[in-house]
Amino acid sequence: MDLKNYIAAVENFPKEGILFRDITPLMLDGEAYKYAADQFSQFAKEKGATLIVGPEARGFIFGCPVAVNLGIGFAPVRKPGKLPRESVTVSYDLEYGSNSLSLHSDAVKPGDKVVIIDDLLATGGTMNAAIQLVEKLGGEVVGLAFLIELDDLKGRELLKGYDVKTLIHY
Amino acid sequence: MDLKNYIAAVENFPKEGILFRDITPLMLDGEAYKYAADQFSQFAKEKGATLIVGPEARGFIFGCPVAVNLGIGFAPVRKPGKLPRESVTVSYDLEYGSNSLSLHSDAVKPGDKVVIIDDLLATGGTMNAAIQLVEKLGGEVVGLAFLIELDDLKGRELLKGYDVKTLIHY
Repeated sequence: MDLKNYIAAVENFPKEGILFRDITPLMLDGEAYKYAADQFSQFAKEKGATLIVGPEARGFIFGCPVAVNLGIGFAPVRKPGKLPRESVTVSYDLEYGSNSLSLHSDAVKPGDKVVIIDDLLATGGTMNAAIQLVEKLGGEVVGLAFLIELDDLKGRELLKGYDVKTLIHY
Repeated sequence: MDLKNYIAAVENFPKEGILFRDITPLMLDGEAYKYAADQFSQFAKEKGATLIVGPEARGFIFGCPVAVNLGIGFAPVRKPGKLPRESVTVSYDLEYGSNSLSLHSDAVKPGDKVVIIDDLLATGGTMNAAIQLVEKLGGEVVGLAFLIELDDLKGRELLKGYDVKTLIHY
């Protein structure tokens, strides 16, 4: 199945000059959505994952089905202030300004084998922050999975040393 | 399985006087998460759903696994400006101010049988807006599903005439 057939290209979104890759047509097609989720489930299983982690909101789109498929837990990475209990937080730089992400302190137990899933690998900043959160809590990051990778942005270089699985390249 | 054992009560979150029901312990327990998702999948199957809809971000937590389980599509309801293509939008009043939600115009086809899933039924405002979006596009709302219902807030009254399934009552 060629998943690219289910990705819409939207020019100048969210701002002028950006070509946005819209994954909602893929999610809307039950067969394509299940096919992609199954690829991720197989990867997480091969890596021996005991926990799936995903950044909000779009990391939930594949992370949650994979956790349920494998019968393992899912821990959300969210913006500070969204998680109600004790959390760890990391900050990272964006092109303009900076961003912070948090994870509940009890979400990862030392020794957990974690696969982190997100929809898109661009510069890798979000994923790198998620890795730091998991490792701060003693988890072992055994794999990273993305639906789409924008090769030109070289996000993979920031994630060197980790096993990266991507279903669609642009 | 008593799902209440997996819900944390957090006092004074997100503001003074609110008792927040935190579902992250349930998601972290693979068995409990799968059990809850399976209940929703069974409900959606019984209702003959052809499409699952869920409001971001927490409606993705159960909505996405159910869509993948059943091999049907999932359409996200998001805040205006987050969806890249032509959308329909509805606004609704909150205690202070108002809120708007959008859905891609091509997300629902006339005749689609839609189950809408969210984590929490409080006053019902979000779900009522999601229903309006689906119906504007010609979809038939065949069921509404929530992990938690706060009975005192009487959200169910706003959703009268719809088949509501809730797994946990407070």
